[in-house]
Amino acid sequence: MHILDKKRIINILNGLDLVPIIEEGFISYSKGGSIIPPVGELTFDDPPGDVHIKYGYIIGDSYYVIKIASGFWENEKYGIPNGQGMMLLFDQRTGKPEAILLDDALLTDIRTAIAGQICAQRFSNQIERIGVFGTGLQARLQVEYLANITDCRQVMVWGRNENKMNIYKNDMNKVGFEVVLGNSAKEVASKCNLIITTTASKEHLVSDDDILQGTHITAMGSDTPDKRELGPGIIEKADLVVADSIEQCQERGEIACAIKDGLTCVDHIVELGHILSGQHPGREHHSQITVADLTGVAVQDIQIASAVYKQYMETKNEI
Amino acid sequence: MHILDKKRIINILNGLDLVPIIEEGFISYSKGGSIIPPVGELTFDDPPGDVHIKYGYIIGDSYYVIKIASGFWENEKYGIPNGQGMMLLFDQRTGKPEAILLDDALLTDIRTAIAGQICAQRFSNQIERIGVFGTGLQARLQVEYLANITDCRQVMVWGRNENKMNIYKNDMNKVGFEVVLGNSAKEVASKCNLIITTTASKEHLVSDDDILQGTHITAMGSDTPDKRELGPGIIEKADLVVADSIEQCQERGEIACAIKDGLTCVDHIVELGHILSGQHPGREHHSQITVADLTGVAVQDIQIASAVYKQYMETKNEI
Repeated sequence: MHILDKKRIINILNGLDLVPIIEEGFISYSKGGSIIPPVGELTFDDPPGDVHIKYGYIIGDSYYVIKIASGFWENEKYGIPNGQGMMLLFDQRTGKPEAILLDDALLTDIRTAIAGQICAQRFSNQIERIGVFGTGLQARLQVEYLANITDCRQVMVWGRNENKMNIYKNDMNKVGFEVVLGNSAKEVASKCNLIITTTASKEHLVSDDDILQGTHITAMGSDTPDKRELGPGIIEKADLVVADSIEQCQERGEIACAIKDGLTCVDHIVELGHILSGQHPGREHHSQITVADLTGVAVQDIQIASAVYKQYMETKNEI
Repeated sequence: MHILDKKRIINILNGLDLVPIIEEGFISYSKGGSIIPPVGELTFDDPPGDVHIKYGYIIGDSYYVIKIASGFWENEKYGIPNGQGMMLLFDQRTGKPEAILLDDALLTDIRTAIAGQICAQRFSNQIERIGVFGTGLQARLQVEYLANITDCRQVMVWGRNENKMNIYKNDMNKVGFEVVLGNSAKEVASKCNLIITTTASKEHLVSDDDILQGTHITAMGSDTPDKRELGPGIIEKADLVVADSIEQCQERGEIACAIKDGLTCVDHIVELGHILSGQHPGREHHSQITVADLTGVAVQDIQIASAVYKQYMETKNEI
């Protein structure tokens, strides 16, 4: 069995083009080519934290994958990253452990940012200004990955903590983005045609009349049944709602919250893999409002873990 | 983070008295002192296999534990053990990975055998002959562990494969048991007052009129919704039915099968932890038929993994 530490994983990632790998995963998932049970979840009260166990396999592939990723929000008090975790690969034919990727949740962060990049590329109009809710790691990564697909470097950010907003502004300036601070999530929505929501909020931050025509929203902060950032009506009224997994999004994320609000018809919700495969057209008009609800699907973890491990096996004797 | 290989784990196990540790786990579980989500499950068709992910934590303890254990029944063709897996410990306050126990499912085998020993000690009358369904690893371990609590060395075994029955007989002779082969599960039931069921059967092997008065049955083979070894009526008519987890046994194992048969009243089902804590008396009369339905609860994994790791941390500098 092989154990890869984070440094080794980072080295391997530098040589991988992950976008097509993650896209293939979404396509396979939507075609029914993978077995992905419901997310396992463990919650803690004191100190507060949650653990997600995402697992499954692509039928006919070499490995099954189990991903453990946790968020313990008070960790920063102790100088420990909030996100922790690892990915495990096992032989799909025998169950034998193949590899442990000690990634400290890095691969989850990256596959999540890549899903955001894929959605922004597919669903945004020409990006005039990037609106961001939140100032944490994904608020950074999602924007940094956009540099792969747009020349826009204008960002408006809003977060609850002004100090963290200023740190965000300085940090993102250093990587080439011009950041202005929003007074509210509403102000961000009123001035940006791409919105990325990355907070762990349990109360909605914007209403449906805050969203400009032609906006695309990538909603990735809400990944549990009780987190939400988008107000009532946004999912219902959007011209196109894309779910990374329709099944999972009915249990957790913004679509789940809309269903709790009373949304009964989910016919306008399309699975990301069906758009990536060309089965559905995606955005059809400049003026449409589109929403991608990303709750994080195990197929992303399976794809990134398998890609890293395969690359490791091919190159391990070279280093 | 610490990685313990199987050899190290075996060394540590030699110095541990696990019975009280596992008993404490059951008691804590039944008192509501632990958080144990439903079992995660992943199944494979070609080759056939299943993976169980059991996880959770005891409130106020140091670690949360995730256990991965799989069975791939064709592994023996390739000389690979059917059972594979590992246990992972994480800090309950931060989510940081603490240890990986590369036990190849050994700890699952042991905690399962210990649960059987606990049940036989609590619920059997004086054991006259040990009846065993199945010839695999648990058919051996369950009997070997009984040597801790009884002088009886008489075993009657039945399995589908005569060759494997003969190997079982020879192997068990070497560790001090006198084994006779049964012609059927019914014959075993008719001649033994302790029955241990360890097969992966999906059809019941005995009927309620096969069971002698005063028998105790430890049913541990069925741990999924579709596996069963006990025929209709046995759970319903037993004087005492003990579940390792009432919640879990309503979804998987013999009690779940009885519910599918139409069992509606589960009032005679008692949780093992409530008997171990003295809250319920257990067997009350010599003539009673008792059944322990053991589906394997994560609290056993939490307890054995934590005990091994704590012992490792205390002694690691001594070796």
